[in-house]
Amino acid sequence: MKKTGIEKQVDEFTSKLESFSKALPENKIALIVFSGDLDRVLAAFIIATGASAMGMDVVMFFTFWGTPVLRDKKRRVGGKDFMGKMFGTMLPKGTDGVKLSKMNMGGMGTAMMKSLMKKKNVASLDQMLDLAEEMGVRIFICEMSMDLMGFKREEMIDYKNLTFCGVAKFLEEAQSSKIQLFI
Amino acid sequence: MKKTGIEKQVDEFTSKLESFSKALPENKIALIVFSGDLDRVLAAFIIATGASAMGMDVVMFFTFWGTPVLRDKKRRVGGKDFMGKMFGTMLPKGTDGVKLSKMNMGGMGTAMMKSLMKKKNVASLDQMLDLAEEMGVRIFICEMSMDLMGFKREEMIDYKNLTFCGVAKFLEEAQSSKIQLFI
Amino acid sequence: MKKTGIEKQVDEFTSKLESFSKALPENKIALIVFSGDLDRVLAAFIIATGASAMGMDVVMFFTFWGTPVLRDKKRRVGGKDFMGKMFGTMLPKGTDGVKLSKMNMGGMGTAMMKSLMKKKNVASLDQMLDLAEEMGVRIFICEMSMDLMGFKREEMIDYKNLTFCGVAKFLEEAQSSKIQLFI
Repeated sequence: MKKTGIEKQVDEFTSKLESFSKALPENKIALIVFSGDLDRVLAAFIIATGASAMGMDVVMFFTFWGTPVLRDKKRRVGGKDFMGKMFGTMLPKGTDGVKLSKMNMGGMGTAMMKSLMKKKNVASLDQMLDLAEEMGVRIFICEMSMDLMGFKREEMIDYKNLTFCGVAKFLEEAQSSKIQLFI
Repeated sequence: MKKTGIEKQVDEFTSKLESFSKALPENKIALIVFSGDLDRVLAAFIIATGASAMGMDVVMFFTFWGTPVLRDKKRRVGGKDFMGKMFGTMLPKGTDGVKLSKMNMGGMGTAMMKSLMKKKNVASLDQMLDLAEEMGVRIFICEMSMDLMGFKREEMIDYKNLTFCGVAKFLEEAQSSKIQLFI
Repeated sequence: MKKTGIEKQVDEFTSKLESFSKALPENKIALIVFSGDLDRVLAAFIIATGASAMGMDVVMFFTFWGTPVLRDKKRRVGGKDFMGKMFGTMLPKGTDGVKLSKMNMGGMGTAMMKSLMKKKNVASLDQMLDLAEEMGVRIFICEMSMDLMGFKREEMIDYKNLTFCGVAKFLEEAQSSKIQLFI
């Protein structure tokens, strides 16, 4: 049986609607955490947990100076070359070593900000990380940055939704997100 | 009367089209002004007023170092605790105290840039603020940042479309925007 | 001949679908390269070339501190006023003068990072630029920034898809992009 003109058009609409629904962004936010400054990393986590609380899917991609923030504070890893050891010593080892981008004043400003956050009931970076993990925020770590700085997978924090990946993986997630921010 | 197959499909299309049109971003741009550096705040206002001139709805969310930029230059507010007084003194008081992120050279670079902007007919920060207000650019100030730095609502500038809010309000606006930038 | 109810609805759907397909973002990414730091400019090019390899249309908009990165290393241009000469001397002359935002340590950190990138087979800025040109990445340079810093068109690099423009042109591209980042 031949299809009528209208039946054909209905078929066409159906396929067009399908391709549109694929092209629409998902209720997702993709954050690049490039900075390793306390203020910017905090902002990233406040946005991430806030978006998650609103029901958004959240992806954080840690790269460059953001990478050392995710090192485990206690774990020690051997077998590094000279450059790896140097970066390992100079860059912050996890959330404790992270400093303000301004008004650090030899650490005094950062300490003040941390005590102020406590007083005002703003969660610390460690608490933010725990909260993010609980809420299902996915964290990606840039493998190229780790390679450049000589970091090994074993020295990174334990986190449920942790993936090591490259820029292509991030772009894939960002493409289908409503919001993307470079922090 | 029973609906025919095609009539049912038409109903389905209608509801799908409706949900699609809701999922499409609005002709809107959402800017997070995190930085308090003259160069970055200027960039934010140039983008904001440019987008507004193109007919876009514009939302600027001032947070962290961006917050003190919106303090009124002349207003004095009492009743602050020690930390509030310290932040109040150390952070720029409005647009006049804002400095370049690079080549500030003890204020000389910033002064040079300002005189250069005047010579080249680039609007100053104050002029940009006036223009933005006139154009209907909406400004949000992050309440958590204000609380941390001990700023009070009374010491902020007079601006027509000024709202004090949290991260959720910003994310709501950003979700439905075509462009989002973290500056 | 009069159209039936269903025929009218089909017409309506067709026009709605058309306007939707125009409102959908293109498979495009728009990057604002505001920073002139080696780490951030590198990140911009890694994202740009990565996106291009995935088949995305890529637009980079160089503004403010990003502008001098695109100066040709060898070309000398005369006829500048005092301020133009000063900016010309103080700002990096092309990719060679670009430094890390952190751990520069008088140039030692930047040199270390460059040698490390070579060792780990990460492309240099110059190689990135060549790759971007080959891949068809479009580069825009902000005319207002050039004017402020006294740069002339003749002193910029040769690049196939180079355009001098203002903020409106960037916003136009960003509006129709899936991803926008302020770097």
